[in-house]
Amino acid sequence: MRGAILYGPRDVRFEERDVPRIIKPTDAIIKISATCVCGSDLWPYRGINPVARPTPMGHEYCGIVEKVGNAVTSISPGQFVIGSFFASDNTCPNCQVGYQSSCQHAELIGTAQASMLRVPLADGTLVATPAAPSEDLIPSLLTLSDVMGTGWFASDAANVRPGKTVAVVGDGAVGLLGMLSAKQMGAERIIAMSRHKSRQKLAREFGATDIVTERGDEGITRIKELTDGIGADSVLECVGTQESMMQAIGSARKGGYVSYVGVPHGVELKGEQFFYAHVHLHGGPAPVRRFLPELIKLVWNRKINPGKVFDLILPLDQVAEGYRAMDERRAIKALLRP
Amino acid sequence: MRGAILYGPRDVRFEERDVPRIIKPTDAIIKISATCVCGSDLWPYRGINPVARPTPMGHEYCGIVEKVGNAVTSISPGQFVIGSFFASDNTCPNCQVGYQSSCQHAELIGTAQASMLRVPLADGTLVATPAAPSEDLIPSLLTLSDVMGTGWFASDAANVRPGKTVAVVGDGAVGLLGMLSAKQMGAERIIAMSRHKSRQKLAREFGATDIVTERGDEGITRIKELTDGIGADSVLECVGTQESMMQAIGSARKGGYVSYVGVPHGVELKGEQFFYAHVHLHGGPAPVRRFLPELIKLVWNRKINPGKVFDLILPLDQVAEGYRAMDERRAIKALLRP
Repeated sequence: MRGAILYGPRDVRFEERDVPRIIKPTDAIIKISATCVCGSDLWPYRGINPVARPTPMGHEYCGIVEKVGNAVTSISPGQFVIGSFFASDNTCPNCQVGYQSSCQHAELIGTAQASMLRVPLADGTLVATPAAPSEDLIPSLLTLSDVMGTGWFASDAANVRPGKTVAVVGDGAVGLLGMLSAKQMGAERIIAMSRHKSRQKLAREFGATDIVTERGDEGITRIKELTDGIGADSVLECVGTQESMMQAIGSARKGGYVSYVGVPHGVELKGEQFFYAHVHLHGGPAPVRRFLPELIKLVWNRKINPGKVFDLILPLDQVAEGYRAMDERRAIKALLRP
Repeated sequence: MRGAILYGPRDVRFEERDVPRIIKPTDAIIKISATCVCGSDLWPYRGINPVARPTPMGHEYCGIVEKVGNAVTSISPGQFVIGSFFASDNTCPNCQVGYQSSCQHAELIGTAQASMLRVPLADGTLVATPAAPSEDLIPSLLTLSDVMGTGWFASDAANVRPGKTVAVVGDGAVGLLGMLSAKQMGAERIIAMSRHKSRQKLAREFGATDIVTERGDEGITRIKELTDGIGADSVLECVGTQESMMQAIGSARKGGYVSYVGVPHGVELKGEQFFYAHVHLHGGPAPVRRFLPELIKLVWNRKINPGKVFDLILPLDQVAEGYRAMDERRAIKALLRP
């Protein structure tokens, strides 16, 4: 079997890897139908997170169950399944309150850019579609594994409600799907903070009503101008840098809600900054598993089409080009077909 | 008229000050029935916040309206009133969503340790009691001006709900009244983090069911032990230091709620710390005005007795002893009668 391995900065190779096998009786092996490159994969790809040794890559996946361990009861071979980027038992106290990405037995998936994948805790992690999906649904189903679930969590954690005004910091795939989520949750006004023409277009398709191209303090000033000087009810921070975080907090109204879903890099909040801002803060690694049944239904019934974020589709053996295109911002998100 | 003036570290004097007068038509002048020393007054008293010049002190007050400006319509001379430590118009967009301490025209009250006080924006700031209160209600009514309103906000912002487990970091007056608030809101279990015998006693009277004397990581470990390894649903951070903040975040369960109401001193949160904690964060200067009508009713009907936090009652001319007793932790909170 071949799969992606990151050797160092900007050095992804498609190489022979061991075929995954059942290690624990709670495991499943799935045959990948589609996988993709995540914005967070670019941190090690760009050398910002150092890579100590050659590392298999990929944590977004959907596909057909090939084999299950003895202890697996709810998933069976032949089913089409989607799972979160965090495997979870879905029964521990953290899972029961809907924080499966903080499951007491959580395991990060990390080898999904390949033709086969071992998924631990299969019963708690995987959700099957009602039947084999038609080909055109596969990109949207794939997004539920992380990027769409993360955008949805961003919107949920920022308390998006019908009729409210929402600002989204970041026009990457997560930010764009945060807009789609906010629209789906009934937001009246969705302000996309975006500088890229192609992304602005998709933002509008997903429900954005306004575009703000300014950043930092200028961006905050624009958001205030658009909201009678008050700020947005909900702000989704979908980047993970100090600048984006301060932009998000500054764009929210008093008593408003700021969510953050991008893994933070160099973010530091001073007490005075969040104390006097008077905002609600919530976020973290998205508990995608919580939302899977609902989101599968929305995709299955063609109510949402998050798969539109894939503007580059490649055979898996061209995975290196997928990374390059995203790194150079030629692509929003690259889908890979084994 | 005489009142308290802070000259420098540990140097509070009771001296002649100008009698306050109506400056703007929206002002009221009130004759103070009772005022007190706040934990936050100790920051400048201890020299941690520098004092540039002799500064009048005090922001907690209740009393009888003496005079009102031409534009004041809802408050009239002779009424017994309580107001927040932040004057607010109670009509701007920030006030309308319940964040009066971030009113677009907010003014911090700062001269209440005196016999008379000018209150700006009287219509928006002051709330009258149904009639002249009996003497024994005055301490409890006074607490609504800040400390009880702040404890209530801490509990509200930490999403305290019937049947939930609450931990309170800090056994000062705000922390203690946070416990009373949590009890009132129906919390089943209230864990007080406290090292002081006399405060533990009051904590239990106010509704604490458990006492944890450990701090920092040991305190977190104890909270986890008391909650099946999960953490508390709600944590009230009522101190404002880095240690207390990290203790609060570490004590909450995944998806739990942490509130902070103590003015932060040297607090800095690293992205990873709050990202992976998976908690909700909310707080800031308490919008006491939001809660005044409800809390006045609870005190008036003798459902709550927050005035118990005053374990030292002094004539106003002994204000310096009030500061000393609180600084030396001989008193939880000092009430001053002009």
